[in-house]
Amino acid sequence: MHRLGTVSIVGVGLIGGSVGMALRQRGLAARVIGLGRSSETLEEARQLGAIDQGTTDPAEAFEDAEAVVVCTPVTRVVEDVLRAARLSPPGVMITDAGSTKRRLVEAIERDPTAQRVFVGAHPLAGSERKGVAAARADLFEGRMCVLTPTERTADDRLERAESLWQSIGCRTRRMDLDEHDAALARTSHLPHAVAAALARVVAPDWLELGAGAFRDGTRVAGAPADLWAGIFLDNRSCLLDALGELCRELDELAGALERGDEASIRAWWEKGRLNRERFSMPGGGGSD
Amino acid sequence: MHRLGTVSIVGVGLIGGSVGMALRQRGLAARVIGLGRSSETLEEARQLGAIDQGTTDPAEAFEDAEAVVVCTPVTRVVEDVLRAARLSPPGVMITDAGSTKRRLVEAIERDPTAQRVFVGAHPLAGSERKGVAAARADLFEGRMCVLTPTERTADDRLERAESLWQSIGCRTRRMDLDEHDAALARTSHLPHAVAAALARVVAPDWLELGAGAFRDGTRVAGAPADLWAGIFLDNRSCLLDALGELCRELDELAGALERGDEASIRAWWEKGRLNRERFSMPGGGGSD
Repeated sequence: MHRLGTVSIVGVGLIGGSVGMALRQRGLAARVIGLGRSSETLEEARQLGAIDQGTTDPAEAFEDAEAVVVCTPVTRVVEDVLRAARLSPPGVMITDAGSTKRRLVEAIERDPTAQRVFVGAHPLAGSERKGVAAARADLFEGRMCVLTPTERTADDRLERAESLWQSIGCRTRRMDLDEHDAALARTSHLPHAVAAALARVVAPDWLELGAGAFRDGTRVAGAPADLWAGIFLDNRSCLLDALGELCRELDELAGALERGDEASIRAWWEKGRLNRERFSMPGGGGSD
Repeated sequence: MHRLGTVSIVGVGLIGGSVGMALRQRGLAARVIGLGRSSETLEEARQLGAIDQGTTDPAEAFEDAEAVVVCTPVTRVVEDVLRAARLSPPGVMITDAGSTKRRLVEAIERDPTAQRVFVGAHPLAGSERKGVAAARADLFEGRMCVLTPTERTADDRLERAESLWQSIGCRTRRMDLDEHDAALARTSHLPHAVAAALARVVAPDWLELGAGAFRDGTRVAGAPADLWAGIFLDNRSCLLDALGELCRELDELAGALERGDEASIRAWWEKGRLNRERFSMPGGGGSD
């Protein structure tokens, strides 16, 4: 990848901060500017090495941007992308890191300016921890980043977006919007919903009887409510499908339990065990 | 605790091996004998420092036993306890490590000899890994061990069992059989069932889109099918209750999603988040 000029990061939290650190530590950009709403957070990000410079002024953040990475919560991605498209030079490439894609990309593509420069992306990295203090330059190392081009996406912007995500460590895979949202409903949103549900069914007096299965199964329930309410609502039809599917799986187990059918319980378990065995996650660092 | 004479461990796998290592490293017993079905496994256990001596002969294993710890799968606990009671000196104390309690303890207490010497126990430690190679002397450090005395349990045996589990690092808590099984259905058996279900709903081509939430939420699905089929069946009425409760929690979320009711989704998530925040697991080493 050629060295970028100015890269502007919108939202310098865990994800945005890690993008900035990776770009800076690898010398991939002449300058990394962070746009945020709090001068204090921006200063913290600068001190942690996530950005060269912070600003709360969108005009200043975008005036020289060659690339913009929007890393705000899904509830704010659309307006942040549209504003970046309006204020950046016409040659800009804008990408995002939102956990859902159909609603965001469709809304963004209704804007002709944004449509010409935007490429939807979703790097599969994160943490139940929040904020730039949790950011790490190697957060994306070996992690998958899904890109969701549409028929409206410009080829050169797609290549530039792929190149940017790859340059900070990601593997990339192209998927259409519906497949992305359906897959992530199962691989991410559903495990989050289930983690919260598992945490809800244990009475406080029984919490001390939880061990590793409970600890790991509920870990991501520690994430902020507003973040996940936004993601769930954005992807609600796929998540509803996934919830229905999970409950059917559990019903199948319940049926076998009621019948005392040990062979079926073993076969049910074994299918899950084999699927889990096929799964491996490179990097191992980030945790979302 | 006074130093024990001979302690016999039935089933020298992850749990039994860790009990042996903890007893030996802390110098808590004059001799630790392992009873198993495979001479090779017993030799491996001896080389790893889990036992002083292994045997496949029950008579030899129990003839001098001051304490017996039965660490076989729940499907074998009852017969192993009854046999140990028959072959051990009358002064023996026998305890177990089974993950369910009502069926086991009730079956054991129908035998007058076993009833006089047995104390049901369940140390909340383990791993998705299996076998003595995964055993560790500190597996029980800070972990809860639930003891389930009944009105038939001898006071002195209860004290000896508590003392033994505490001596290898456990905190202990007494619970009745029903409460144990209801609590563990929620804190352990349900998270295991859900882990397998989560692993089942992701198509192989989408596994590479799983990240930390999927990794952690499905980790325990890697455990052996026969082990968990046995536990699930043993505790099936409590597990069925817990499965029903989980699906009601998920239905509540689904209802809020269908209504687009963000406030309810946030409140739903927040209750789980707060419960998770209250949970902490000492030791951190073992993982089940």
